Amino acid sequence: PSSKLPDVGTSIFAVMSALANEHGAINLSQGFPDFNCPDELIALVTKYMQEGHNQYAPMPGVPALRHKISEKTDKVYGYRPDPDQEVTVTSGATEALFAAITAVVKPGDEVVVLEPCYDSYAPAIRLAGGIPIYVPLALPDFSIDWDLLKKNISSRTRLIIINTPHNPTGAVIPREDLEKLANLTDGSDILILSDEVYEHMVFDGKEHVSALQIESLRQRAFVISSFGKTYHTTGWKIGYVVAPPALTAELRKMHQFITFSTVTPLQLAIADYMDNEAHYRSLPDFYQAKRDLFCELVKPSRFELIPSAGTYFQLLKYDAISQEHDLGFAKRLTQEIGVASVPVSAFYHNKTDHHYLRFCFAKSEETLQQAAERLVKL
Amino acid sequence: PSSKLPDVGTSIFAVMSALANEHGAINLSQGFPDFNCPDELIALVTKYMQEGHNQYAPMPGVPALRHKISEKTDKVYGYRPDPDQEVTVTSGATEALFAAITAVVKPGDEVVVLEPCYDSYAPAIRLAGGIPIYVPLALPDFSIDWDLLKKNISSRTRLIIINTPHNPTGAVIPREDLEKLANLTDGSDILILSDEVYEHMVFDGKEHVSALQIESLRQRAFVISSFGKTYHTTGWKIGYVVAPPALTAELRKMHQFITFSTVTPLQLAIADYMDNEAHYRSLPDFYQAKRDLFCELVKPSRFELIPSAGTYFQLLKYDAISQEHDLGFAKRLTQEIGVASVPVSAFYHNKTDHHYLRFCFAKSEETLQQAAERLVKL
Ligand SMILES: CSCCC(=O)C(=O)O
Ligand SMILES: CSCCC(=O)C(=O)O
Repeated sequence: PSSKLPDVGTSIFAVMSALANEHGAINLSQGFPDFNCPDELIALVTKYMQEGHNQYAPMPGVPALRHKISEKTDKVYGYRPDPDQEVTVTSGATEALFAAITAVVKPGDEVVVLEPCYDSYAPAIRLAGGIPIYVPLALPDFSIDWDLLKKNISSRTRLIIINTPHNPTGAVIPREDLEKLANLTDGSDILILSDEVYEHMVFDGKEHVSALQIESLRQRAFVISSFGKTYHTTGWKIGYVVAPPALTAELRKMHQFITFSTVTPLQLAIADYMDNEAHYRSLPDFYQAKRDLFCELVKPSRFELIPSAGTYFQLLKYDAISQEHDLGFAKRLTQEIGVASVPVSAFYHNKTDHHYLRFCFAKSEETLQQAAERLVKL
Repeated sequence: PSSKLPDVGTSIFAVMSALANEHGAINLSQGFPDFNCPDELIALVTKYMQEGHNQYAPMPGVPALRHKISEKTDKVYGYRPDPDQEVTVTSGATEALFAAITAVVKPGDEVVVLEPCYDSYAPAIRLAGGIPIYVPLALPDFSIDWDLLKKNISSRTRLIIINTPHNPTGAVIPREDLEKLANLTDGSDILILSDEVYEHMVFDGKEHVSALQIESLRQRAFVISSFGKTYHTTGWKIGYVVAPPALTAELRKMHQFITFSTVTPLQLAIADYMDNEAHYRSLPDFYQAKRDLFCELVKPSRFELIPSAGTYFQLLKYDAISQEHDLGFAKRLTQEIGVASVPVSAFYHNKTDHHYLRFCFAKSEETLQQAAERLVKL
């Protein structure tokens, strides 16, 4: 039988992590912290398990968590979604993306995807019978090329997917661009999916602007976030979607049959822990210090530092070192220098290579120091 | 925008549970235990969280858990799947079902579904562009009607879904029937999906026969199970799929983009706890005692007890009491008598009503006694 995703191989994150393990390299490839989540959060999970909260959560998420998400959204973005009709908890942002895309994309629909982008968008679109329309972000700062975007919008466009702060580049979409997007799509049937899982990691005093803050976007957007990045728990797989009632209703029909519900004691623990506002308020400084340390240490190297305004990723351009394709170069760096990264070509459908590597700096100072030392030697 | 699943409303489990709460009724509707999982399992989760196992698990599942699943499968069914190529951990059996169906069903493919059946099969088929072909099980014992099944197989049949032990009826597919199914499909391109999440709950000395035990079925089957039923943790959402390497490869392509991976500390804890063979070996007696207690107490009532050979569900026929449609009757029972159940018509695509209600007996003795007392009064 023929494959429905014939061109999908092992994910670049698994490839690079396996290579890192094989060669005992420092693994700055897959995005996850090498430090633990707060003890208090663990204690809360234990408490809820001991109290017997180990059976099915309600399909849309436990009410306490949906309420806290609503409150936080109000505090941070000035919009308070209805927890019953506009907030849905999912098994990670990956399920949220898959469910949102599956909910609205029909065979033949076009979905605009800004490249480079996360590797799950296009497969989800294709499995729904949709056609990904790839629009490259403009170099050198990975900003939206409005002329190109407009050219790629048609009467078949069903959905535009944006991601801010942006994985893998660290770019942040400014408010003006979200407003332009609103103007561009106002009065059309085009929906928006805004992937904002790095919402709490924006640096240099800049602000993350959520699609929820632009009223006319919010009215036809799925806004997706996740607790994995915010609470250093990428392995807990709890994400969520804020969307208007009509979109939420369709999203939940998918969620009901994709996973039905999400781990109960983790949801309850996170709901309690969300009272600790200081945690997410401290994240920009926390991660900016790591970015600054990494950049400072790498500066003497022959890599060019591409400014990272958000996320926990830093791009390095290696033009001055080699003209190899980035996949080969990333592998060689892992094998020979002992530092694993992700080649940015992996985020382009046709493996476009601009000689960028992505490094995850969600690591201890020691790890970052060791990695930088090796990179400087090159 | 039109809905992709226009006829999907609130799930019957949510409807009946909400009604139960509203009326303070005893909730025997949605299938979950009202007692807690083993303390040791909770302690293991805490240990792994404290040790820092809170980041992404490998996409196919943590190796330790895949190995334990392989070992257990060998011990119980005499077949040892390759943990690296034939075992995949998913975010519950629901994700497993969705991923397996999405992996192999293409637009226009027919999928045979034996009714009554779990409510996620048909939506998953339809979202993949497939056509569910509903074949009713034969009354009174919900056995396979072979003539009818054969009539419904065509050159477009891509997949046949079976479920044993069977939700909602408690029927168990005997070995001869699995062999018939093997013979019927041998030499064809038809694949099998066998939903065996109640594998450890079979009563009266009977045996659960897995599709894995019939070699020619195993070679083209996705066999799905879950830890939720086995460890009293329906809210942990950890399931798995055993399938031959070629099917596993396609399944994992879906899993990678549906949820990517499943909660790390829960996987590690379950892997350790699986050494406790006594746990699952004791489940048949444990649940048979509950079934027997419930049946004994309900016997004086005007309900007819339909034999339950497996699962944690008991069907009651209410013909002698009322001729109402089962949905209305189930609601009335919740409101007036204070016992919530699930009308079996909810498991038929066209809501076929044979006057059966499904009761979950995964409850404490006290709960079962109280419920039975109320049913006897009717
Ligand atoms: C789900 S594995 C990939 C993790 C991640 O978001 C990344 O490294 O980009
Ligand atoms: C996922 S909610 C439904 C639980 C269940 O399996 C059932 O009650 O049949």
